[in-house]
Amino acid sequence: MQTRNACHTVNHMVHYQARLDTTFAALSDVTRRGVLEQLGGSDASISELAQRFHMTLTGMKKHVSILEQAGLVTTEKVGRVRTCKLGKRRLEEEAAWIEQHRQLWSARFDALDKLVEHLKSKEKADAQRRKR
Amino acid sequence: MQTRNACHTVNHMVHYQARLDTTFAALSDVTRRGVLEQLGGSDASISELAQRFHMTLTGMKKHVSILEQAGLVTTEKVGRVRTCKLGKRRLEEEAAWIEQHRQLWSARFDALDKLVEHLKSKEKADAQRRKR
Repeated sequence: MQTRNACHTVNHMVHYQARLDTTFAALSDVTRRGVLEQLGGSDASISELAQRFHMTLTGMKKHVSILEQAGLVTTEKVGRVRTCKLGKRRLEEEAAWIEQHRQLWSARFDALDKLVEHLKSKEKADAQRRKR
Repeated sequence: MQTRNACHTVNHMVHYQARLDTTFAALSDVTRRGVLEQLGGSDASISELAQRFHMTLTGMKKHVSILEQAGLVTTEKVGRVRTCKLGKRRLEEEAAWIEQHRQLWSARFDALDKLVEHLKSKEKADAQRRKR
């Protein structure tokens, strides 16, 4: 039972990390971020997006497919038109990861500030002692 | 003067987008995120990081170099040891971008919910009208 729980936890972590890999990679391109901003306003077809971002249909299809794999966009083909809309993923895990890093970062630099402060006041005290 | 302002704005946007590209790409790898978490606890040498993440020195150097280019890590070589510590970038722009997307996302899905609600109540009213 413990092994099963451990397996479940490991499995969960692997999927979580894989999701972060895929989403951050999807967000690492200015066009793909632009497409998400655009779809935040209204749904659009692949050809509308291609036109809007001065890109070939093939190029835009690749970008949309990467966003789709990351769950950030869903597409539906009706007749000859493939319409894109925002997907179900709300970037909650990504926001949480970044927030956690910022907190670690602050804690780390606060600790450094305190150390510098401590060294400075020690130096000052030593200098005064030498003066006497 | 207006042209200069416009150039400045365009330049600013290009740099902002390039920073987001680089940082999100740096974050899209489980080892690199792990290194950042590790350095949030304490500084470490490249060889300590390589050992910790079961990786060759060359592999870890590549990861650290990507983090360094993104400003997320700084390194300093003293003698034969290169020590890594957290860099100056606090992922503020990345957090802001994700937050903006989440707000767009919520607004979009709230609007869809309202539309569905409206269609449902219209359907109900039509059904009641037909009954009479």
